[in-house]
Amino acid sequence: MKKFINEVDDILVESLTGFGKAHADLVEISFDPTFVRRREPTRQGKAVLISGGGSGHEPLHAGFVGYGMLDAACPGHVFTSPTPDQMIAAAAAVDGGAGTLWIVKNYSGDIMNFEMAAEMAGGESATVLVVDDVAVEGSSFTVGRRGVAGTMIVEKIAGAAAEAGADLATLKAIGDDVVARTRSMGVAFTSCTVPAAGSPTFTLGDDEMEMGVGIHGEPGRRREKLAPARVIAEEMLGAILQDLSPAPGQELLLHVNGFGGTPLMELYLMYQQASAILTDRGFRISRSLVGDYTTSLEMAGCSLTVTALDQRATELWDAPVHTPAMRSGR
Amino acid sequence: MKKFINEVDDILVESLTGFGKAHADLVEISFDPTFVRRREPTRQGKAVLISGGGSGHEPLHAGFVGYGMLDAACPGHVFTSPTPDQMIAAAAAVDGGAGTLWIVKNYSGDIMNFEMAAEMAGGESATVLVVDDVAVEGSSFTVGRRGVAGTMIVEKIAGAAAEAGADLATLKAIGDDVVARTRSMGVAFTSCTVPAAGSPTFTLGDDEMEMGVGIHGEPGRRREKLAPARVIAEEMLGAILQDLSPAPGQELLLHVNGFGGTPLMELYLMYQQASAILTDRGFRISRSLVGDYTTSLEMAGCSLTVTALDQRATELWDAPVHTPAMRSGR
Repeated sequence: MKKFINEVDDILVESLTGFGKAHADLVEISFDPTFVRRREPTRQGKAVLISGGGSGHEPLHAGFVGYGMLDAACPGHVFTSPTPDQMIAAAAAVDGGAGTLWIVKNYSGDIMNFEMAAEMAGGESATVLVVDDVAVEGSSFTVGRRGVAGTMIVEKIAGAAAEAGADLATLKAIGDDVVARTRSMGVAFTSCTVPAAGSPTFTLGDDEMEMGVGIHGEPGRRREKLAPARVIAEEMLGAILQDLSPAPGQELLLHVNGFGGTPLMELYLMYQQASAILTDRGFRISRSLVGDYTTSLEMAGCSLTVTALDQRATELWDAPVHTPAMRSGR
Repeated sequence: MKKFINEVDDILVESLTGFGKAHADLVEISFDPTFVRRREPTRQGKAVLISGGGSGHEPLHAGFVGYGMLDAACPGHVFTSPTPDQMIAAAAAVDGGAGTLWIVKNYSGDIMNFEMAAEMAGGESATVLVVDDVAVEGSSFTVGRRGVAGTMIVEKIAGAAAEAGADLATLKAIGDDVVARTRSMGVAFTSCTVPAAGSPTFTLGDDEMEMGVGIHGEPGRRREKLAPARVIAEEMLGAILQDLSPAPGQELLLHVNGFGGTPLMELYLMYQQASAILTDRGFRISRSLVGDYTTSLEMAGCSLTVTALDQRATELWDAPVHTPAMRSGR
């Protein structure tokens, strides 16, 4: 295992400490229990957004804490759910008196712990469950579909609405609406290595790829022979479009997400393949995002995410944002 | 070789086409000859900044084309210098009547081609040569020190000055000043694979790392046994500080740059190690940048870059920027 670490047990604390120092203008880190919050105090009357999950998917979620996205994030150990005490402490720290929207990826451990936190924290809250991965209906740690790269789209759009003053019920409706409009699918060329395990999560032959892989290296639909980029894009978009069934001429957000070990040059090439396919089929790509946003440590591969936009989602996607990993520009 | 490609010969065109579509609000791509320019026409009287180099280092340079950084970038094939016709066409396309500052990384091919372009293009121009890599004094393709991750710092700071209306002579002086204030060193855990070659550039044992590696996988100072993150950070910063000799209490910009295959979580951990070392030695880290900015395809590893800041450099670093890969936030 080749990693920049000291002791395996210290990875999360050391990495989060560095993250907090590097972005001290935007975020503040607490330990015991561990959570990341915006530096600026919550505006009274603002409904807050809190997400979280296992680490190893950076910049998700802590990288999206800041103006226009999340109010706090709760990182667990690598690929391990955070615990309710983290969520309760985060909610108390950023409370604005207008309730909490929990944004939860669909994994059994996450769901159980966020539910427990919501009960124990009391106060007004609602949960948006993200289930964007069309690859499989159930998987390790999951009943139903997995929540993957579409999660940050929910966080961006609901986060913008919260910043604009939407109340909790509206945020819940917006979040659920984005989930309903969003589908993803991924492919892996290599495994990742969880530090505490020390060896790759799975193995692939030199000429193989895992089609439909999960963001923890969970099995996908099948193992296939390597194929040209356009064939891979066709297969992933075929599955996404079959499930999403966008209307002819529908405006789409196309997100090409790198899993951590694939060069940006290849991600833009995949964007070109995917956008050509979608345009050929009569859809309009009106918004785009390319890069490593929801990673699986150093796994080589990528996912495609498609969101069917309406005017509200587009305006919220375009709204100003200022977080460590997502910024709207001057 | 596992990559998202169709035909090896089409990588650059397909990737750049995707890049252009994904960022159509900011940039425009031309082919034959190939260059990337800002979408907005150059303000008359603005001195322009043009950089370029081999592809495979994305987001460098094309990802830094936009408000507050570069006016144009000329991408060569993977790890191959762009040609003078690209540079001449780029300079003609973005000319603002106030001259061109060429920002060139110190590799023999790049220098030769940028010099030829400057001569053939005519008009007022100046060149800033980036030589920030303290690892070795000469290397494959290089006489003297290599230009590596410090390049984007030159582009950011000089780019902000150009946006604010600085003339060519001032930009040249600012660029040279940033180079004089900046040092880098890198380490690799794995090789990268150049698509046209099809096999890894070099090989490393399971317990080895290349200390002082170049951004094309060129040899560094020596091959070493894997070490804890803090030992790696100590060695790289030792070399950087010995060469830079910052004054006690000096304010520093610390940039941890990923080479493409290392998770963000590990980069923040390295930031934590490096910042602790620098703070212990009495320096002040007043600005930070962590992420994949100057990559070597999918190479696992990272570099540390330190810039000794003064008030002017700090203000220009903080100035608004809006490019595909670097944004200042709302």
